[in-house]
Amino acid sequence: MTTTGITSDVSLDVVADLAAQLRVDSIRCSTSAGSGHPTSSMSAADLLADLVARHLHYDWDEPRLPVNDHLIFSKGHASPLLYAVFRAVGAVSDDELMNGYRRFGQRLEGHPTPVLPWVDVATGSLGQGLPDGVGVALAGRYLDRLPYRVWVLCGDSELAEGSIWEALDKASYYRLSNLVVIVDVNRLGQRGPTDLGWELDAYARRAEAFGAHVIVIDGHDLAAIDHAFAEAADNAKGTRPTVILARTIKGKGFSEVEDSPDWHGKPFPSDMAERAIAELGGERELTVRSPLPAPAEPGPALEHPSTIPLQPGDGAEPSTRRPVFDVGDKVATRKAYGDALVALGGRDETVVALDGEVSNSTYAYEFAHAYPERYFEMFIAEQQMVAAATGLAVRGYKPFASTFAAFLTRAHDFIRMGAVSGANLRLVGSHAGVEIGADGPSQMALEDLAMMRAVHGSTVLYPADGTATTALVEAMADTPGISYLRTTRGSYPGLYADGEDFPVGGSKVLRSGHDDQVTLIGAGVTLYECLRAAEMLAGVGLPARVVDCYSVKPVDTAGLVAAAEATAGRIVVAEDHHPEGGLGSAVADALLAAGQQNLRITRLAVREMPGSGTGAELLAWAGIDAEHIAEAARALVRS
Amino acid sequence: MTTTGITSDVSLDVVADLAAQLRVDSIRCSTSAGSGHPTSSMSAADLLADLVARHLHYDWDEPRLPVNDHLIFSKGHASPLLYAVFRAVGAVSDDELMNGYRRFGQRLEGHPTPVLPWVDVATGSLGQGLPDGVGVALAGRYLDRLPYRVWVLCGDSELAEGSIWEALDKASYYRLSNLVVIVDVNRLGQRGPTDLGWELDAYARRAEAFGAHVIVIDGHDLAAIDHAFAEAADNAKGTRPTVILARTIKGKGFSEVEDSPDWHGKPFPSDMAERAIAELGGERELTVRSPLPAPAEPGPALEHPSTIPLQPGDGAEPSTRRPVFDVGDKVATRKAYGDALVALGGRDETVVALDGEVSNSTYAYEFAHAYPERYFEMFIAEQQMVAAATGLAVRGYKPFASTFAAFLTRAHDFIRMGAVSGANLRLVGSHAGVEIGADGPSQMALEDLAMMRAVHGSTVLYPADGTATTALVEAMADTPGISYLRTTRGSYPGLYADGEDFPVGGSKVLRSGHDDQVTLIGAGVTLYECLRAAEMLAGVGLPARVVDCYSVKPVDTAGLVAAAEATAGRIVVAEDHHPEGGLGSAVADALLAAGQQNLRITRLAVREMPGSGTGAELLAWAGIDAEHIAEAARALVRS
Repeated sequence: MTTTGITSDVSLDVVADLAAQLRVDSIRCSTSAGSGHPTSSMSAADLLADLVARHLHYDWDEPRLPVNDHLIFSKGHASPLLYAVFRAVGAVSDDELMNGYRRFGQRLEGHPTPVLPWVDVATGSLGQGLPDGVGVALAGRYLDRLPYRVWVLCGDSELAEGSIWEALDKASYYRLSNLVVIVDVNRLGQRGPTDLGWELDAYARRAEAFGAHVIVIDGHDLAAIDHAFAEAADNAKGTRPTVILARTIKGKGFSEVEDSPDWHGKPFPSDMAERAIAELGGERELTVRSPLPAPAEPGPALEHPSTIPLQPGDGAEPSTRRPVFDVGDKVATRKAYGDALVALGGRDETVVALDGEVSNSTYAYEFAHAYPERYFEMFIAEQQMVAAATGLAVRGYKPFASTFAAFLTRAHDFIRMGAVSGANLRLVGSHAGVEIGADGPSQMALEDLAMMRAVHGSTVLYPADGTATTALVEAMADTPGISYLRTTRGSYPGLYADGEDFPVGGSKVLRSGHDDQVTLIGAGVTLYECLRAAEMLAGVGLPARVVDCYSVKPVDTAGLVAAAEATAGRIVVAEDHHPEGGLGSAVADALLAAGQQNLRITRLAVREMPGSGTGAELLAWAGIDAEHIAEAARALVRS
Repeated sequence: MTTTGITSDVSLDVVADLAAQLRVDSIRCSTSAGSGHPTSSMSAADLLADLVARHLHYDWDEPRLPVNDHLIFSKGHASPLLYAVFRAVGAVSDDELMNGYRRFGQRLEGHPTPVLPWVDVATGSLGQGLPDGVGVALAGRYLDRLPYRVWVLCGDSELAEGSIWEALDKASYYRLSNLVVIVDVNRLGQRGPTDLGWELDAYARRAEAFGAHVIVIDGHDLAAIDHAFAEAADNAKGTRPTVILARTIKGKGFSEVEDSPDWHGKPFPSDMAERAIAELGGERELTVRSPLPAPAEPGPALEHPSTIPLQPGDGAEPSTRRPVFDVGDKVATRKAYGDALVALGGRDETVVALDGEVSNSTYAYEFAHAYPERYFEMFIAEQQMVAAATGLAVRGYKPFASTFAAFLTRAHDFIRMGAVSGANLRLVGSHAGVEIGADGPSQMALEDLAMMRAVHGSTVLYPADGTATTALVEAMADTPGISYLRTTRGSYPGLYADGEDFPVGGSKVLRSGHDDQVTLIGAGVTLYECLRAAEMLAGVGLPARVVDCYSVKPVDTAGLVAAAEATAGRIVVAEDHHPEGGLGSAVADALLAAGQQNLRITRLAVREMPGSGTGAELLAWAGIDAEHIAEAARALVRS
């Protein structure tokens, strides 16, 4: 094992010195920046010093090495500590630490992001680093099959987030003994004491009940810390995740602020910083290197628990054949999604799928049947589903995560943070809009397009038929960032011949003529209503153009402009969604941004709270069916 | 105690008969509707029969009686069972059950909603009924101080949602012994077995670790059920919530489907329904009434645990005096929110506040200091925060719930369901946009306006100064539905004199003249940039109108039309938000809907992923500062 500087033979005496340096540097950089969280860093400094010097197997020169351990700061506000670690291992310079932290245009941001090569995921919205870590650990155990471990530093405050318990539930269900959770129990949150304070026994009972191997230690006793990490390594041979509960003192090492509720998220003024650094023995120039990971080959495939029997029926066989849907044949786009995903998975072994216990509705179960080893059942835990997808993406897999579109709102904060992480996530929401009918408004996604459009760098797709779905699922495999596919519950006739091209950012003109008076724009279910409306309008001598706006973001500005210009600016947009932020907004935004004048856009959308009914009744009630579209078109032409 | 029909002396033999009737009616109504979840209803029928006949203290003729117990179906898909109960107590007719269930225009929706007077909250997005129930129980124990109990029926599948554990954590923290959670452990989810199956011990350990008094029973043993409910009543004198874990069989009572994974969410075809009803002893016409609640007066005020010391400092005294902010004096709108809330709370005792452990940032802590008995610390559990607000609103309180605007995305599904519940919720998000500076993108709300605009019936407000904030906080107290206030981190000078009127749906013209060439529209921090841009433009002989669009939804269409017409359709909108779905969309949507032609709108928004920096650096980097606004205005006038 070769490395530069001091190796993993680092003694606990040196670790103690390192811990002091991490504290000093946490103080120095936050005071220099004028903001940050020194006291939340100081409580965890002993833990990190021992971890990095003696237990984290990581080649700091090769952060993308597949055998590296992973280190995730779920308590992202302790970024001074993380960056002090980066300085201690020689990854960043003292100059960068002192002049880059929290500064404009620099990479040492207020909360860690993967702008830094040693950071897997962005944190700072609490309760997310651990769920992300579960995803990395799933990849390690079942896909990479490498012996790396995933070390996650949590704060105690964030244990109040339900997502932490979703994560531990899945970690124990999937036997993720490669996951080590270190909880820095300093008993103080932002505004005062936490819910449970220093009741480590209470935390221990919870973590144990959720299936973890629990170790309770004094988080400032280096021997105890070192022993706990060794025990965690030993536990990795077992089947349970490890949770180390470390009782710590916020601001540890500087007597003026230790255990004080008044110093959360505040840098020390320079005079205090001087006194703190003096009390901690002054600045240091220690460099350590973590033990290097041993080379390793993928181990044998492990069967995982979600290969439990799924609902019987038309279980799919592995296949690389792209599904073919004929024009006129009825199929639900959610079914086409399942078929297309099986074909994609047959051609690309990095494709993986997750679902939130509705795989027989989203048709993700077809993939689960075909490739059980690449399917992860997340049960009804949408936050963890998206976080696991993020973690799997960290390891280079291409996750497709599906549930009812309405329930993706449950994971909104995780999707948002996935974008900050730069993760390539593919989300699929079925059962969108009032079209679903009898189940009522709790199951009807009417805000998903608005939510997904507002995610930074997102791609939003909404196919109407099986051919379009197949093409767009294939496109998603290579789409960077967060991409979203909205599928429909009901079956509708195929519109496009097999092989039709559906570029992201495109649209289709399904009906047009030289004397078109109005453009009807739909997507998904409303496209069929637009087509029917155009028939009705043709019957009364009013020719209408019909556009399939299957790519909601990016939207086909050129195509929309051409349609607007061909029909004197008269446009009817119909969407099975609330009027704000969805398809109608995408169309209006694009036309205005393109400088279109003289627009007369009528936007039909779901403007009242729906109840139960049939899909057809509800489309009519909402005013987004063919009759209402035709009436809106007539009114535009008359006006 | 008087009532109609059979009273609470109902014997267990009659309860058994009632349970059979509930099963039969669950089958009848779902078969009749052609959809629904009979088997998920049948597993819980014995539990509900005994509860309703012998333990739920409820006057079915007076559902709004303050002393009534509350019954919440967290497993909302078991609506056939709930509606069968409604029939059994004479609240709905057999005709309505058979011809109304899941039909268009009827009130027996696929999942329960408060369209029905006996339903407190909409359910159907799993893991929400229990968190809502925590809010009702908080009201019962600390505000109403009445002895009613809150009974929540949960499914076992939904225990995978983290929100369930947030709820139990808060239920035990707040000593909600008036809360009884009944878990129908039928071991089968939608697509197959649950995570933990029939491991009732595992569930028991989890619930106990989260502070509950746990009772494990056979959910089909009426004597055991009855004993458990009596024990729960007894436990109400204690300090812990009760969790009853009932081992049940899905489809119980019809041997063809019992414990089968193939019958989730499927009505029985009519021949099967006939066999099932025969096996269950046929249709019945039993009517029972629940025991009536005893009259009660509010008990003594209880101190609750979140009166723990908050961060010291300028703790607010109770006051009814509206805060006064002078023109030119600098104040942060988040601080003005705290001040205004204290004043509102002084005048209206139904005003309550909740916060997600950041009350010293949102300034909710001022209210907490002034009225500790009406403040509920939710720690870092935003889902539970919004759910508790929903539950408090059920009991007629006016909740204001605050956290960083970015973290409200965590509660998106709860906000959405709050709208389905018709709840009057007031949400406040601080630290919006890149203006916050150094903390980086994880803390920057850049999608909150899009999220909140797309909520059905929502009101979205974004004041720029203290006077506007005060007025809008007062308006929110009387605003129905979901209202949202976006506040800013930094301090900016007062623009409006005390007493200025800020109607919801209005806007303010802060600068105008007869020869205005362009309209600059901002809100919050960008309003100041618009004002500065107008100064710059005036310096180069280009007069600009400035509009404060403080009401983002509903937006002031008439005011915007007037501005557009006065400036030849030239408009620059600047927002500290992603370009999709926010202020710019609100403005564009309104002008297009009003039929405005010849619009030339330049929308300035945050289009790239921000990092850390100062607020000023980031506003400039994003292209939403005065310089960019002025440049956009010049470009519009030149073009």
